[in-house]
Amino acid sequence: MSFKSISEIGEFGLIERLAAISAPTLRNVPELIEGIGDDCAIWRTGDATLQVATTDLLVEHVHFDLLTTPLHHLGSKAISVNVSDICAMNATPCYALISLAVPSSLPVEMIEELYRGMAHAASLYGVAIAGGDTSSSPSGLTISVSMTGQTTPEKVTLRKGAKPGDLICMTGTLGGSCAGLHLLQRERATMIEQLRNKEPYDKNVMAELQEYAEAIRHHLLPGARTDIIDFFDEEGIVPTSMIDISDGLIADLGHICRRSGVGAHIEESRIPVLSEARAIAEEFQQDVFDWALSGGEDYQLLFTLPKSEYDLVAAHRDITIIGTITEKEEGLLLTDIFGMTIDMAEMKRGFDHFAG
Amino acid sequence: MSFKSISEIGEFGLIERLAAISAPTLRNVPELIEGIGDDCAIWRTGDATLQVATTDLLVEHVHFDLLTTPLHHLGSKAISVNVSDICAMNATPCYALISLAVPSSLPVEMIEELYRGMAHAASLYGVAIAGGDTSSSPSGLTISVSMTGQTTPEKVTLRKGAKPGDLICMTGTLGGSCAGLHLLQRERATMIEQLRNKEPYDKNVMAELQEYAEAIRHHLLPGARTDIIDFFDEEGIVPTSMIDISDGLIADLGHICRRSGVGAHIEESRIPVLSEARAIAEEFQQDVFDWALSGGEDYQLLFTLPKSEYDLVAAHRDITIIGTITEKEEGLLLTDIFGMTIDMAEMKRGFDHFAG
Repeated sequence: MSFKSISEIGEFGLIERLAAISAPTLRNVPELIEGIGDDCAIWRTGDATLQVATTDLLVEHVHFDLLTTPLHHLGSKAISVNVSDICAMNATPCYALISLAVPSSLPVEMIEELYRGMAHAASLYGVAIAGGDTSSSPSGLTISVSMTGQTTPEKVTLRKGAKPGDLICMTGTLGGSCAGLHLLQRERATMIEQLRNKEPYDKNVMAELQEYAEAIRHHLLPGARTDIIDFFDEEGIVPTSMIDISDGLIADLGHICRRSGVGAHIEESRIPVLSEARAIAEEFQQDVFDWALSGGEDYQLLFTLPKSEYDLVAAHRDITIIGTITEKEEGLLLTDIFGMTIDMAEMKRGFDHFAG
Repeated sequence: MSFKSISEIGEFGLIERLAAISAPTLRNVPELIEGIGDDCAIWRTGDATLQVATTDLLVEHVHFDLLTTPLHHLGSKAISVNVSDICAMNATPCYALISLAVPSSLPVEMIEELYRGMAHAASLYGVAIAGGDTSSSPSGLTISVSMTGQTTPEKVTLRKGAKPGDLICMTGTLGGSCAGLHLLQRERATMIEQLRNKEPYDKNVMAELQEYAEAIRHHLLPGARTDIIDFFDEEGIVPTSMIDISDGLIADLGHICRRSGVGAHIEESRIPVLSEARAIAEEFQQDVFDWALSGGEDYQLLFTLPKSEYDLVAAHRDITIIGTITEKEEGLLLTDIFGMTIDMAEMKRGFDHFAG
């Protein structure tokens, strides 16, 4: 018998296999509406409300590096990424459970700082940290956050539901997180080099980071768009489908299309890119649209709306219409800034944690 | 500024500090009834039902060793320990979210085996695996399971609520898990020694393990007592307080007493000990009562009942009355098998993951 390595099938391949194994358990509870395959699980709780639930894992050396990540920011981000998944269901976040595997060498004060970041973010979003578990870790720090939220059958928004002709909309800008990450990785390399050479730390580097504070903030301290969920509620908007952009625009639009059984056509020139990210991409001699399309971790919302509801979002200064849902047969198309139309299936498909 | 190491304040000390930091967030959601401090968090969902939620972390080299832990068993245990926390609230388990941080070197087939164990156990308990997250891990395997359950305001049972005069009851037997762990650790040492000496694996060792299959099963494959929750429901029993014995009888009885503001007096001679554990303790020249009192991980239920309800549990063959709740001032007392009464506060206090 020969064994398969995870990198052969990739993160999404692994998830598919595990989902197949756990699929029969979905029938164990008839109140479950949606299991694996969306941003959250959804179940009825006996009355007119629905509960949604999600979980996210942050692993040291995979998702973050303590050399360039302040612990307060990290705690805040761990909460925000879960709130973002709850928002993607058009739901309000409620309760968080926090599990920490902590290296014994990490001082108590640093774990408290991490937790203060979590408590701070939780209060911003109206979330209660209701429980958790702690353990030592023989290697790095691992943070596991699970979160539940609440919505109604009328409002709940899945990845499936997009229809040909729907507008493809997104909030905020893209590329900032990826640009910030590039800066921090360069900073880290410089710090390690200086430590190795026993040089004093060069403060000019910090000054340059200051200049790009917004991109770094996008990476270290992304915000979840609860404000958009409130806006939907006030305006009576219920998107036909929604996802948060965590894997990258192309990958996440792909998730919507696959689950909805539709195609999509977006225009590169309409994609809102963080202006600082343009400057940083230039410095790194990279294409900022690569970062915007495939960078991931911007935690904006991507959603679809019937064309008839154009007026409801057109005036919102932080929502941009970037394309149209098409028939499935047309695939995922991108018209680039030169007017060339490309099949997105052939472009990079978002971040894979197991990629060799 | 000098930093404190976690081992200086211990696991419970750390939990206390983190609970203090997150305490203000509990006010963010008025429907929350109980946050950190019990086996589960509890919240209202708008009608006559309560949701409960818990999370447990299993870390390789801290909680398990892949050399002596079949992955199917490990998956099953990861589910059972969470179900056990749900049972401790007198609730029915419903949904599980699974997060895995997996070393890239672990073949896909082994992760599938782990997941099959989870799916198998989930179906035994009527739980739906409704979501999760996967990541690579730069070191060992980490499993984080979060689970929700359901109960009613009439049935929900906290750690607080025990009254002086109440009977202290427990299910099943103790010591089995600790005895099994001792066997597996010896087995592991032998295997490593043989590998080092390039000797062939000695099958006699396996034969001896066979003889003690029950203790090993108690450690590798503990069952959660959903049967007792069903029995309570049938008989209309609502304990005044309840906890699952995961840290060890003394530690967990201590949790009930602290939260209820009471004392306790138990009798060692009444504590049901797995008979195989006696034989194994003798072989290891250890006191089986140490294992029963402080070993932990037996996942039995410890609960209190008014004396007037004695008849309701007296006939159950798997429930044993081991003592009485007393006034707080009397402390935690144990009358040992020689008739000596000892203060349990001076005995070992359960397993601390951060103990140096």
